[in-house]
Amino acid sequence: MRVRDYECDVQGVVNNANYLHYFENTRHEFMISLGIPFYKEVHLKGIVPVVARADLHYKTSLVGGDNFISSLTVERKGIKIIFHQEIYRKSDNALCCKGTIEVAVLQNGKISRGDYFDEFMKDYLES
Amino acid sequence: MRVRDYECDVQGVVNNANYLHYFENTRHEFMISLGIPFYKEVHLKGIVPVVARADLHYKTSLVGGDNFISSLTVERKGIKIIFHQEIYRKSDNALCCKGTIEVAVLQNGKISRGDYFDEFMKDYLES
Amino acid sequence: MRVRDYECDVQGVVNNANYLHYFENTRHEFMISLGIPFYKEVHLKGIVPVVARADLHYKTSLVGGDNFISSLTVERKGIKIIFHQEIYRKSDNALCCKGTIEVAVLQNGKISRGDYFDEFMKDYLES
Amino acid sequence: MRVRDYECDVQGVVNNANYLHYFENTRHEFMISLGIPFYKEVHLKGIVPVVARADLHYKTSLVGGDNFISSLTVERKGIKIIFHQEIYRKSDNALCCKGTIEVAVLQNGKISRGDYFDEFMKDYLES
Repeated sequence: MRVRDYECDVQGVVNNANYLHYFENTRHEFMISLGIPFYKEVHLKGIVPVVARADLHYKTSLVGGDNFISSLTVERKGIKIIFHQEIYRKSDNALCCKGTIEVAVLQNGKISRGDYFDEFMKDYLES
Repeated sequence: MRVRDYECDVQGVVNNANYLHYFENTRHEFMISLGIPFYKEVHLKGIVPVVARADLHYKTSLVGGDNFISSLTVERKGIKIIFHQEIYRKSDNALCCKGTIEVAVLQNGKISRGDYFDEFMKDYLES
Repeated sequence: MRVRDYECDVQGVVNNANYLHYFENTRHEFMISLGIPFYKEVHLKGIVPVVARADLHYKTSLVGGDNFISSLTVERKGIKIIFHQEIYRKSDNALCCKGTIEVAVLQNGKISRGDYFDEFMKDYLES
Repeated sequence: MRVRDYECDVQGVVNNANYLHYFENTRHEFMISLGIPFYKEVHLKGIVPVVARADLHYKTSLVGGDNFISSLTVERKGIKIIFHQEIYRKSDNALCCKGTIEVAVLQNGKISRGDYFDEFMKDYLES
């Protein structure tokens, strides 16, 4: 992805909150790549994934126009699905932000394991 | 309202798109002050107001920490509801952004006059 | 470009303000494609392009995951540079948003013609 | 503060990234209340506070129009300044988001203790 200028703040660097956006977008692209029929099926089934925790470590700041690589691995941990995500600046591979995102799955409003997702992610799940 | 730092861009001024946010927020505060029961009733009745046009003139740039006044007048024009909105910097009353926002009202997916709103806004409507 | 989920609002459609972001990003990509050395040279020369007016017509709403095409033409009109911009949904070529963005150029804080840009844009300028 | 509608996403709740914005805004309001002359003096002195880590726990989701209370305590921990921040829904005092924000201070580009801030914050610092 490439940093868009409006994502930068007064200091000329990407605002901290936007890394959560990049991470979220990367998870969605990952879901789409797995063929998870998000908007139609998942919500109709009453399955709602929600972020329960986000732990972000900021290393190197991205600036406007920077290209970056956003990667993830995914782990099943009890009832939670944990995404380990990293963003690297493309020009020199510098680590910009490293995050652990814990996702809980609501099924009809109640916390559930969200096994629905495991089948789609089975080739990627670390345990 | 006060400008929040994350609303400013690299040049240190409020990003153009945020004035649309300020205007939107002002219209919503106006609706709430009129007692329009937005989230519960309006959507359940299948009434959806949508912005059809926004014409914005940028005059003076706001910077981080600036306080500003956001004002509006509202006009009924055929099937459209027109909001005339202005944002002034509080310190010296300088006009920052002046906008005309045309709102169309969908009733069950079809364009309608949205007479529902006129009753609430009758003390404010210019014609 | 593809709509990112966080760009959508409660109604499930792209928030109006984000079209200004898409348009801004498209102008910047256009500038980059022309080889305009934005961050380094332009600002150092004291040249600052600012949006003076944005007139947006909203037609069809984009939703999360939609792919879209963002196009522009550029016109020199007196001291202003006018961008005519359109966003089309990729799936069916529906026009989503059409905007006219008037850019003024500040040179050391004063309004100028910004001839600097004309040379770069000469193959694209309509008059 | 009150949730603005454009801060909510498709699910009708405040997007996760916006809690970082609320937290940031609260820290800035806190700084302003202490009389820290941010934009003029601090940056001129080459002092730049940067977020090194943000650990966020999401509990209850805020929705459009919700009023909320944003509180913080601040702690000096070696070279870092740690903010413990919480957001509560005003209507029922439900904890919505709890975060630990670690701030590092750059002085002329190098990590420093940022003692500059301690004097201003001395009545609030926990150790």
